[in-house]
Parts: sequence; C-alpha cells; structure tokens
Amino acid sequence: MNNARPFDFLNNAIGKTVLVRVKGQKEYRGTLKAFDVHMNLVLDEAEELENEQVVRKLGVLVVRGDNILFVSPSL
Amino acid sequence: MNNARPFDFLNNAIGKTVLVRVKGQKEYRGTLKAFDVHMNLVLDEAEELENEQVVRKLGVLVVRGDNILFVSPSL
Amino acid sequence: MNNARPFDFLNNAIGKTVLVRVKGQKEYRGTLKAFDVHMNLVLDEAEELENEQVVRKLGVLVVRGDNILFVSPSL
Amino acid sequence: MNNARPFDFLNNAIGKTVLVRVKGQKEYRGTLKAFDVHMNLVLDEAEELENEQVVRKLGVLVVRGDNILFVSPSL
Amino acid sequence: MNNARPFDFLNNAIGKTVLVRVKGQKEYRGTLKAFDVHMNLVLDEAEELENEQVVRKLGVLVVRGDNILFVSPSL
Amino acid sequence: MNNARPFDFLNNAIGKTVLVRVKGQKEYRGTLKAFDVHMNLVLDEAEELENEQVVRKLGVLVVRGDNILFVSPSL
Amino acid sequence: MNNARPFDFLNNAIGKTVLVRVKGQKEYRGTLKAFDVHMNLVLDEAEELENEQVVRKLGVLVVRGDNILFVSPSL
Repeated sequence: MNNARPFDFLNNAIGKTVLVRVKGQKEYRGTLKAFDVHMNLVLDEAEELENEQVVRKLGVLVVRGDNILFVSPSL
Repeated sequence: MNNARPFDFLNNAIGKTVLVRVKGQKEYRGTLKAFDVHMNLVLDEAEELENEQVVRKLGVLVVRGDNILFVSPSL
Repeated sequence: MNNARPFDFLNNAIGKTVLVRVKGQKEYRGTLKAFDVHMNLVLDEAEELENEQVVRKLGVLVVRGDNILFVSPSL
Repeated sequence: MNNARPFDFLNNAIGKTVLVRVKGQKEYRGTLKAFDVHMNLVLDEAEELENEQVVRKLGVLVVRGDNILFVSPSL
Repeated sequence: MNNARPFDFLNNAIGKTVLVRVKGQKEYRGTLKAFDVHMNLVLDEAEELENEQVVRKLGVLVVRGDNILFVSPSL
Repeated sequence: MNNARPFDFLNNAIGKTVLVRVKGQKEYRGTLKAFDVHMNLVLDEAEELENEQVVRKLGVLVVRGDNILFVSPSL
Repeated sequence: MNNARPFDFLNNAIGKTVLVRVKGQKEYRGTLKAFDVHMNLVLDEAEELENEQVVRKLGVLVVRGDNILFVSPSL
C-alpha cells in the first residue's frame, strides 16, 4: 500500500506551476509558493482564467482553501 | 453485520480508475493515487468530463473533498 | 418514548435498496453496503436518476454525506 | 422565563405528523419517528411536496439535518 | 462599554413577535417561544411571507439556525 | 507591527452606524449595538437596502454572522 | 524547502493595497490593516469593484473570511 497523502502531492508541487479551480467558473494558474492545512494556497505570477483563456494577471495570490475544487500540479 | 466503512471502499480503489463528481456539473476520471480523512483525493492521468464527454486532460489532480458529490470506483 | 435514532434506521437498511437524493436534482438508487458517522454511504449496483428516470448505471458509489438531502430505505 | 429548547419541541412531535422544508423548494410530510442532535430526522409514510402539492410517496425517509430550513409539527 | 450580546436580544424577544428571514427569499413571522446556541428558533402561530405578503399559516415552527439571515424582534 | 484584529474594529464601531452586506444582494444599515465571536451582530434602527436604496425599515435586527460578506463602519 | 505559510504572505501585506475577491462577483480593494486566523480582513479606504470597475467607495471594511475567494497583495 502507498501511504502518500494528498498534501504530499501539494508539497511536491512547491515551486512548480499549478492550475487551481475554485467555485464559480474561475481558474488561477501560477507558481505554488506555500500552502497550509486548510489548503489555503499562495501562487506567484498568477493569472486568472475563464474557459481556459487568461483574462487577468494578478501577481501574488492567496487562494482560500474552502472554495477550491481542485489543484492540478501538471499544467 | 458487515463492518466495512466508506473509506475502506476508497482504500480498495487505490490504483484503480475512479469517477468523481463535484458540485457544479463537472466530473473527473483518473487513477486514484491517494486520499485523506477529509476525502481529499489525488487522481493521476485525470480527465475532466461534462455530460459524460471528456473536455480536458489534466494529469495529476488534487480534488478537495468538501465539494465532492460521489466517488465511483467502478467506471 | 422510542429511543431509536436516525442512524439506527440506516443500519437496518444495510443490504437493502435505498434511494438517496443529493443537492442539485440528482438521485441515486442502489443497495446500501456501508455508512459512517458523517452519513457517507456506499451503494452497490447504483443507478443515477433524474426526475425519477434512470439516466446512468454507476456500479459501486461512495456518496458524500454532506450533500445528501435524504436517504429513503423503502423504494 | 421559559426554559424549553427547540429540541424539546421536536421531542414532543415524536409520533405526530410534521412538515419539513429543505433547501431547494422541496417539502416532506410524514410521521416523526426519530431525530438526533444534528437535527437528522426520520419520517414514516413520507410524502414529497412541491408548492404544497404531493408529488411522490416515499415511505421511510432519513432527512439530513444540515439542509433543513424548518420543521413544523402542526400540519 | 456595553456588554450585551446578540443572544441577549433574542432572550428579551421571548414571548414577542419576531420576523425571521432565511436563505432563499422566505420570511417567517410568529411569537418567539424558544432558541438555542445554534440560533435554532421556535415560533408559534407562524406565518410564511414572501415579498412581505403572508402566503401560508404554519402554526408551530422549528427554524434551523444555520440558514437564518436575520431575526428582527420589532416587527 | 500593528496588533489590531478585525474584532477590535467591530468593537470600536459599537454605537456607530454600520453597513452590513449579506449573501444574496441585501444590505442592512443601522447602529451597531452588539456582536459576538461568530460575528452575529445587533443593529438598531435598521434599514434594509437593495442597490443602495432603502426598501424597508426593520428596527432591531439580529444578523447571523455566517452569511455576512462585510461590515463597514464608515457609512 | 520553503516554510512560509499563506498567513505570512498576508502579514507581509499589512499596510499595502490588496485586492479581495468574495463569492458573488464582487471585489474590494483597499489598504490591509488587520486580519485574524479566520482570514477576516480589515481594509481601509476600500472601494467595491465589479468587472474591475470601481462602483462604490466604502471606507473601512471588515470582510468576513469565509466568503473570500482570494486576496492579492500585488494590485
């Protein structure tokens, strides 16, 4: 059995680009700088996307964990 | 009486393909790699589906447990 | 006074067909295999229904308790 | 001062017909059989109502407390 | 400094008519009989209102605190 | 570093007019009389606003903290 | 490994302009004065924005953490 946990995957994604989807159709893409036990995330050089198109540049972003649908480290 | 619990079924699904439905019409299908007590899940080679059609390939996906409607290990 | 609790009714429904309604118009019908204190449920041979019509066969289903509106053991 | 609490009113309604309104326009009417500290309820001979019209007979119903708007013992 | 707390105002409203607004456009007006620490309320001789018009008489009503937007003791 | 906390700002607003926005487009303006650790608030001489227009006078109002988006002491 | 946490980024933003997005399309921009462990924030000289346009000046604003989607210190 593999004992890796979801937060281990977030930890491995530190310093890499991640795609974060929140409730309400928005996604944020940026470099994962930090996270905590509530899945609050910090992204750097973050962009806001809608329908996979960049709609805004946001720089540093503290994303609240509560409203996250998924975090994808591979895009 | 059977003492199996819902998380035992998740544990048995590790390494297998699962279908995950979240709030807001989206589903994600991929190989279940990990989960935790909050039902946060990690899928590998994940695809996003809408109306049972694949709309996007996402690779590794950390899905937040809060917003999950169901996890189905058999599809 | 009757001391039965809601979870006793779920316990008595183990092995029987139940109908589960979740937020957002969907219902799931299947054989109740397991549940836990969060009302997370496992259904076997589950079907998804909309407006009381079967729309999909899903096999084993782990339904998250948070988003359940009701569980009906008698249908 | 009256020291009765909301759960005392539920306790007094055991064995009587209650009307339960949940989020999303649905109501359920049936005989209150059991409840717990989360306001999870069990109704017997339950009917589903929409706009005060019976739309479905459901038999035994375990209603999740989280999504309840009100319970009315007098209808 | 005034040390009164919101629940003191509810306590003072026991036996008086209150207006309760819940999520989803509905309001309930009745005599406040009881409340608890979750802000679950019991109203007597309750009426349901929409757009400030009475749409239904409901008698005794146990209103779940979670979904309350406000309680107004003065109407 | 400044050690003031959000609740200190609420405490300083006691006796002053505040504007409170809740989920679902409604705002309430009145004199802040009391609050607690859940951000439940009591307003006196409260008015309900929609699109910044007063739509109703409500007198005393106990606003549930859960559904508050913001409290603004300066309007 | 970097041990910074999301709240360290908020702490570093004290005294600086931040953009806060909440559920329901609204954003608030102002000087971050304070925050707490629930991510409740205090903004000074706050403006309300919709579609990136200022729609209202609000002065001091206590924003409830629960309903925050993101906080961006760099705009």
